Amino acid sequence: MYRLLSLCCVLFVYASSAIAADKPNIVIMLPDNLGYGDIGAYGGGELRGAPTPNIDRLAAEGIKLTNFNVEPECMPSRSALLTGRLPIRSGTSRVPLPGHPQGMTRWEYTLAELLGDQGYVSGHFGKWHLGNEQGRLPNDQGFDEWWGFPQSSGETINETQPGFEVGLLPTQPIYEGYRGQPSTVVGEYTYEIRPQMDEMITDKSVAFINKYAKSDKPFFLYVPFSQPHAPAIPNEAFKSKGGNNYQNVLMEIDHNTGRILDALEQAGVAENTIVIWASDNGPETHQGVNIPYGAQGDSGPFRAEFPSAWEGALRTPGIIRWPGRIKAGRISNEIVSILDFYPTLATLSGGGKFVPTDRPIDGVDLTDFLLGKTENSPREHALFFFGDDMLAMKWRNFKVHFIVHAPALGAVRQAGQGVTTSYRQELVLPWVFDIEADPKELWNINASSTWVGGASFKYLNGYMKSLKDHPNIKSGERRE
Amino acid sequence: MYRLLSLCCVLFVYASSAIAADKPNIVIMLPDNLGYGDIGAYGGGELRGAPTPNIDRLAAEGIKLTNFNVEPECMPSRSALLTGRLPIRSGTSRVPLPGHPQGMTRWEYTLAELLGDQGYVSGHFGKWHLGNEQGRLPNDQGFDEWWGFPQSSGETINETQPGFEVGLLPTQPIYEGYRGQPSTVVGEYTYEIRPQMDEMITDKSVAFINKYAKSDKPFFLYVPFSQPHAPAIPNEAFKSKGGNNYQNVLMEIDHNTGRILDALEQAGVAENTIVIWASDNGPETHQGVNIPYGAQGDSGPFRAEFPSAWEGALRTPGIIRWPGRIKAGRISNEIVSILDFYPTLATLSGGGKFVPTDRPIDGVDLTDFLLGKTENSPREHALFFFGDDMLAMKWRNFKVHFIVHAPALGAVRQAGQGVTTSYRQELVLPWVFDIEADPKELWNINASSTWVGGASFKYLNGYMKSLKDHPNIKSGERRE
Repeated sequence: MYRLLSLCCVLFVYASSAIAADKPNIVIMLPDNLGYGDIGAYGGGELRGAPTPNIDRLAAEGIKLTNFNVEPECMPSRSALLTGRLPIRSGTSRVPLPGHPQGMTRWEYTLAELLGDQGYVSGHFGKWHLGNEQGRLPNDQGFDEWWGFPQSSGETINETQPGFEVGLLPTQPIYEGYRGQPSTVVGEYTYEIRPQMDEMITDKSVAFINKYAKSDKPFFLYVPFSQPHAPAIPNEAFKSKGGNNYQNVLMEIDHNTGRILDALEQAGVAENTIVIWASDNGPETHQGVNIPYGAQGDSGPFRAEFPSAWEGALRTPGIIRWPGRIKAGRISNEIVSILDFYPTLATLSGGGKFVPTDRPIDGVDLTDFLLGKTENSPREHALFFFGDDMLAMKWRNFKVHFIVHAPALGAVRQAGQGVTTSYRQELVLPWVFDIEADPKELWNINASSTWVGGASFKYLNGYMKSLKDHPNIKSGERRE
Repeated sequence: MYRLLSLCCVLFVYASSAIAADKPNIVIMLPDNLGYGDIGAYGGGELRGAPTPNIDRLAAEGIKLTNFNVEPECMPSRSALLTGRLPIRSGTSRVPLPGHPQGMTRWEYTLAELLGDQGYVSGHFGKWHLGNEQGRLPNDQGFDEWWGFPQSSGETINETQPGFEVGLLPTQPIYEGYRGQPSTVVGEYTYEIRPQMDEMITDKSVAFINKYAKSDKPFFLYVPFSQPHAPAIPNEAFKSKGGNNYQNVLMEIDHNTGRILDALEQAGVAENTIVIWASDNGPETHQGVNIPYGAQGDSGPFRAEFPSAWEGALRTPGIIRWPGRIKAGRISNEIVSILDFYPTLATLSGGGKFVPTDRPIDGVDLTDFLLGKTENSPREHALFFFGDDMLAMKWRNFKVHFIVHAPALGAVRQAGQGVTTSYRQELVLPWVFDIEADPKELWNINASSTWVGGASFKYLNGYMKSLKDHPNIKSGERRE
């Protein structure tokens, strides 16, 4: 039924493509496991040995969100971005183990489908991670064309790990595909290809911009980079940039971001293009064997790392530029979620047409907030899941934890020892933190702030009610 | 002998005050125990529930240092600032226990004396903390006038602590003093005065600016604020700003900063005034009984808190504005120390005249760096002491720890438990961190980077050699 709805819409809009003339193009760049503290505009950059001038400039030209929230892992974040719905509704609440069935429900009506129905041409270049079989690839979920790999950036690249031998597990194909046709294998995502991957993603993205900038259709370009996910191995041109692999890769991401921004400029479409730049989840900070020593991503002023519901996992850079429409240099600490791009872009591109009404949409429309009509985001809460667990809830300046994953960085790693541990604790009583007074989430104020639960739980109740007609899909239980 | 030198200089320069006409005024604002992550321009501000627009604007109009280093405690930092010398040379390497003898050696030739000898009039308004007896107060150390309190901001304000009663220990006087005369007690720094202190400091500072802006002498204004040191109790006007006491106090500091900047503007001297804004050491993050719950200062992306040699203790905001001379909006991660203001201001105000040559000066002259003649700071190392211990050394992007104080925040405070511990560990082998790759100092790379010691220890040797003719003053051993 959903599929049918989508097709109808396509027919409808294609017939009236003229109205699309002034719709903004949309570009979303999404690096993989990049931390809040990795980027100059967010306190990293040169400070952590990796200047990021292009991304910093993008932030200065748009709105810089300092309370931008994602899901705790790659797959759920990508699902949330493309559906506007909590991943627990779509069979994408966890990254499955390698080899296990994976994929978003086929009946999700993705942002690519929605924009397609509004007259957009869409392209996906890079990491998909929402299904690894024919019928579950980007061109099956609304993208007109794609090139990239279906699983995780590091899932099949294990050459840096002791004991690994080629042939022990399946390799990962590189696909090319077009809507309405099966995807074609055009290569293999190998260890040798790993340092070239983001350059190739950028090449394809630039070509897409050049191809469609002059068309009469607006375009939606989704660029899920493969870096700096482990193994972070820089491109040849970035091997000697003066940092370790991770630092050099950050500089490479900045360079690739700059290439895409330049392509928009040179194609003359920068003015009418909404550019979104964010990460899919907080950093990996654990010592990787692929770099001379540890210290990869940085979570900035926040606690811990992915995957957890600490701010270090959930808050990433979040930048949105739309020249002349979104005020340059604006900085906001309002709560925004990766879920919100779906309804917001639906409005900015077509007045909200085609947003499904037959299923819960968890994103909220940020249009008035982004365009400066309101100071406040319409979102005052966010729920955070991991698999079937609801880990935590954010409400205004408070955070309520129900289940805790992995303690703070400092606690799991005795200084200089490099010991990494991880655990899951169900709390007897929730922990409550004031994440403005206490950005590092160190002081549980539950006892003095029991009212927070009462005031915030209306959102929890709203979610629980939505499950009645639309039950979640259990983690690991893939559906059609 | 030093005293005599100083007097000679005074005579010399007073006779040629005409040459001072275009010397820049100098304003140094120094809040007490404010953390790197507390200020908007450094990733805090609104994010931590306390917008700091005035300080952020100051940063945007000048150079924002992201690797600005101070001493681990109040007294040593203030000593370093005013002498350009490691505090361990001046009897100021530790904050003494209340009631114990305290004070900088009387023969130090302070920045106030040096600038005075160059024709400046100087004022000190706020916290001194370099001696609490007549003969050791600011007007005995070169300031032409002063108003404030001699000891620490919280040392005698204990009303918020359980069990404390007024009368159990001496109160602290508020002094007013003029050079060449004994200081006069003009009040008592009581619990009732505590929330008014910074407002009074600001009033006096603004009056000083107005008084000397039109004089033919340049001025040196030193504003050591008393906040946000515990107990952080906001002024009446800031009690209802929406945050807890600490957050409200941050907003008050920003407001007071704005008042001083406005006074410079309105007096028409902003253009020819060097404004320095920094903290004396990293934050207190421990739970205070004076606020509803914990979470006071924030160390931003860095580990731990004061007093220690972790970056969270040593790196604070460091902003320098000089319109038309220091490029607006410049951001630098070059190593700079609070020791460096002394020789730098000596140069910027008078070509380096009067910098003593009879004793080691540990600060380096940043003039070319600040004026943009060089990208790099001439400083590539810093040594960090606590009492008689050398705790650590910073060299380029490396940090070598010899003795460790207090583990990382997360390690001492089990999430939500509010447990604070502290310890001192002599390391069997030094720990080495790459503080760019690893800003949180989590990964000891000593084993793979033994060369760092060899390359960096020339600075350690230089320091050791300087002790031969100029032995340190043992902690607690006050000298004349």
